[in-house]
Amino acid sequence: MNTRFYNARILLLEDDGNYNIINGELWVKKDEIIYIGDGSDVAQVCKGDEMILWDVQKDCKGNLLMPGFKNAHTHTAMTFLRSYADDLELQRWLNEAIFPREAKLLEEDVYWLYILGVMEYLTSGITSNFDMYFFQQMGAKAAVDVGFRSVFTSGLNNFSESLERVEEDYLKTTEMSDLVSYMIGFHAEYTTSKELMEGIARLSHKYKSPTYLHNSETALEVAECKQRWGMTPTALTDSLGMYEYGGGGYHMVHVEDGDFDIIKNRGLYVVTNPGSNTKLASGIAPINRYLQEKIPVALGTDGPASNNCLDMFREMFLMTGLAKLREADAAVVPAEKVLYAATTEGANAMGLFDCDRLAVGKKADIIMIDLNQPNMQPENNIIKNIVYSGSKQNVAMTMVNGKILYEGGVFDIGFDPKEIYEKANKIIQRVNNEV
Amino acid sequence: MNTRFYNARILLLEDDGNYNIINGELWVKKDEIIYIGDGSDVAQVCKGDEMILWDVQKDCKGNLLMPGFKNAHTHTAMTFLRSYADDLELQRWLNEAIFPREAKLLEEDVYWLYILGVMEYLTSGITSNFDMYFFQQMGAKAAVDVGFRSVFTSGLNNFSESLERVEEDYLKTTEMSDLVSYMIGFHAEYTTSKELMEGIARLSHKYKSPTYLHNSETALEVAECKQRWGMTPTALTDSLGMYEYGGGGYHMVHVEDGDFDIIKNRGLYVVTNPGSNTKLASGIAPINRYLQEKIPVALGTDGPASNNCLDMFREMFLMTGLAKLREADAAVVPAEKVLYAATTEGANAMGLFDCDRLAVGKKADIIMIDLNQPNMQPENNIIKNIVYSGSKQNVAMTMVNGKILYEGGVFDIGFDPKEIYEKANKIIQRVNNEV
Repeated sequence: MNTRFYNARILLLEDDGNYNIINGELWVKKDEIIYIGDGSDVAQVCKGDEMILWDVQKDCKGNLLMPGFKNAHTHTAMTFLRSYADDLELQRWLNEAIFPREAKLLEEDVYWLYILGVMEYLTSGITSNFDMYFFQQMGAKAAVDVGFRSVFTSGLNNFSESLERVEEDYLKTTEMSDLVSYMIGFHAEYTTSKELMEGIARLSHKYKSPTYLHNSETALEVAECKQRWGMTPTALTDSLGMYEYGGGGYHMVHVEDGDFDIIKNRGLYVVTNPGSNTKLASGIAPINRYLQEKIPVALGTDGPASNNCLDMFREMFLMTGLAKLREADAAVVPAEKVLYAATTEGANAMGLFDCDRLAVGKKADIIMIDLNQPNMQPENNIIKNIVYSGSKQNVAMTMVNGKILYEGGVFDIGFDPKEIYEKANKIIQRVNNEV
Repeated sequence: MNTRFYNARILLLEDDGNYNIINGELWVKKDEIIYIGDGSDVAQVCKGDEMILWDVQKDCKGNLLMPGFKNAHTHTAMTFLRSYADDLELQRWLNEAIFPREAKLLEEDVYWLYILGVMEYLTSGITSNFDMYFFQQMGAKAAVDVGFRSVFTSGLNNFSESLERVEEDYLKTTEMSDLVSYMIGFHAEYTTSKELMEGIARLSHKYKSPTYLHNSETALEVAECKQRWGMTPTALTDSLGMYEYGGGGYHMVHVEDGDFDIIKNRGLYVVTNPGSNTKLASGIAPINRYLQEKIPVALGTDGPASNNCLDMFREMFLMTGLAKLREADAAVVPAEKVLYAATTEGANAMGLFDCDRLAVGKKADIIMIDLNQPNMQPENNIIKNIVYSGSKQNVAMTMVNGKILYEGGVFDIGFDPKEIYEKANKIIQRVNNEV
């Protein structure tokens, strides 16, 4: 598919780190952006190449093309537990509601539940996700089947999966398609033995992979880790040699001064999940300090059981809003930094360096934001409009790898949405009957 | 217009305060709900009446009819300042960005800017708003012209409007149409002299009106009030005899033990504005304590300059989420209490007792929530789905006073949206040139 977008506004990230919005055209050849400009230089672009035949020519009507959002931490297939156990204290939520139901999940279930999650990503302009869960080959198969881009890691812990499985998933996912990739990881220090964590470190060395885990999500987790090991989770995992090839932590709410040094020395990414941290009352991450200390911060929704929605607009507002509350300063974490976290820094954390912005040679992971909606008017500042008043309602189109998967509320993913909803409802009914 | 909704799910508030969702039909005759049931009793409903001729028969396809949201505190016409001055410290935001531009606003501007705000309300399923601003007769005219329901109060302070103007607005707005009404109010203690506040108290007695104001929004406001008067803003305004006919406060973030007694004794409403309090770093209101002490809590977006979006879904998530963070307890302020605040309690605070729920004899202020979207699946708990994962994207229809003003993304308000956007952009350009 070759697509010509014209009459567009286009969000560019300049080399100095500033955003710039130009009027013009953006051309996609197969999966790649081949041109961004005013559209006058057709001959030059096509020189030495066959003349491009457009499959689609789309009048953007002055709406904004921007890079798709990168959801840098989630558990996609947990869609089946959405709204299942809300307004519960965290330990009861996990032990009474979530864990017993996850134990009944079948491998095939993950396929359908993953597709439901991907559909929700598309409605929110998310073009790739960094997924931690079980049965990840099924998640990868689902992503490839619908044409979505996913990076996977393992939910390995003392009760689920194994090091052998992690290695198998790594190898098979990496081979499956360019749309999917894998990074070494495990659930969290508080659910995983030292032996398993050492095995994870070995795998990360063997495959020169970054390592990711849930880290310092709650104060209790950190206190118990220090009791067990005399170190914070960040210090412990670093001491096990886990970050030789980088990596990062999901959540990173309750960090200590020494952790900041490790994060900086190892070049780790912080993936913040403000929606989940809010709903589960985990606390507010020190986002302003991370950014002040030049620590890269990416943004994710966490899973649909804990958030409950997979909506990067809500996360963007919360990322800056909660930082403002924490610091009692309305000026911290400005909108531009939030948008960068939700797009470019997410791509960096996920190793998707060719999906990090709109530029010639980058992958065509593009969304169109409808500016002709009341919440985007007047146009005093389009970036602040996106971060502070934008919503999923403004997502007019989501293109992944050069293919439009969602446009005007309609999915083009090879499945009837009704079928996916029915599958998800049947799975939770079956699981409930078995618990 | 007479409208028959069939094949619907319908959200009912039972007398015991619990929610119940039934399958069936809902019939609207002109501006009133005349029937909710399974649709089998046509003859009985029409007995003694002319046979109803349906102007519209709408297949809801299993989607949910529920009462429209009540946005219980806002400054609608501030749309012109959306994204104008974000990521600024509060006093700079007010003094350098907001106040100088508001001073250049013309009466006619408010008409167009109000309509832009109403359009955004409709996209979020908001069917009425409680508006504080200047030139309120223009706001009222805009509401009536587009068919929207608004309750107004004054933004009176030492620099704007007068007691005479408040009285004139009260009388003219009340006479204008059933769609609009007026309650006595003023901006805030920190902007208003004691003489003006005493005048407000007299007007509230004269018209037996509740009194509303910004109250205890920031810690600084409360500290300075105590320095000036030796009392909190709540105690001071109560001492001036302002609450003989009830009323309430917008924000109510920084309240003291004595304030709780006054709030309860006077039967005041707390209108919470979590989005604005977050973005302006004002703090987190003690919502859990209010609810524990049976103080009625309504929910509002505040204005588009401080939030910046007029989205009750975001506010609902924040109302419970921030309370969970404040109390460090994921169980507080459950979804059902939030939905009640966003609908019924808002209506109560605004005196719209005939718009508070779906029931026979109530006004037809109804929205349809699209459940056939990935963020609403599976249907483990529809109310928690609405509060935790719902978004404006799920608003399939908004009906006010029996007329569908918004459906499937299209407005029926007597104006071309493009015209409204152009007006708003021209107004901010002119204001900027004049500042």
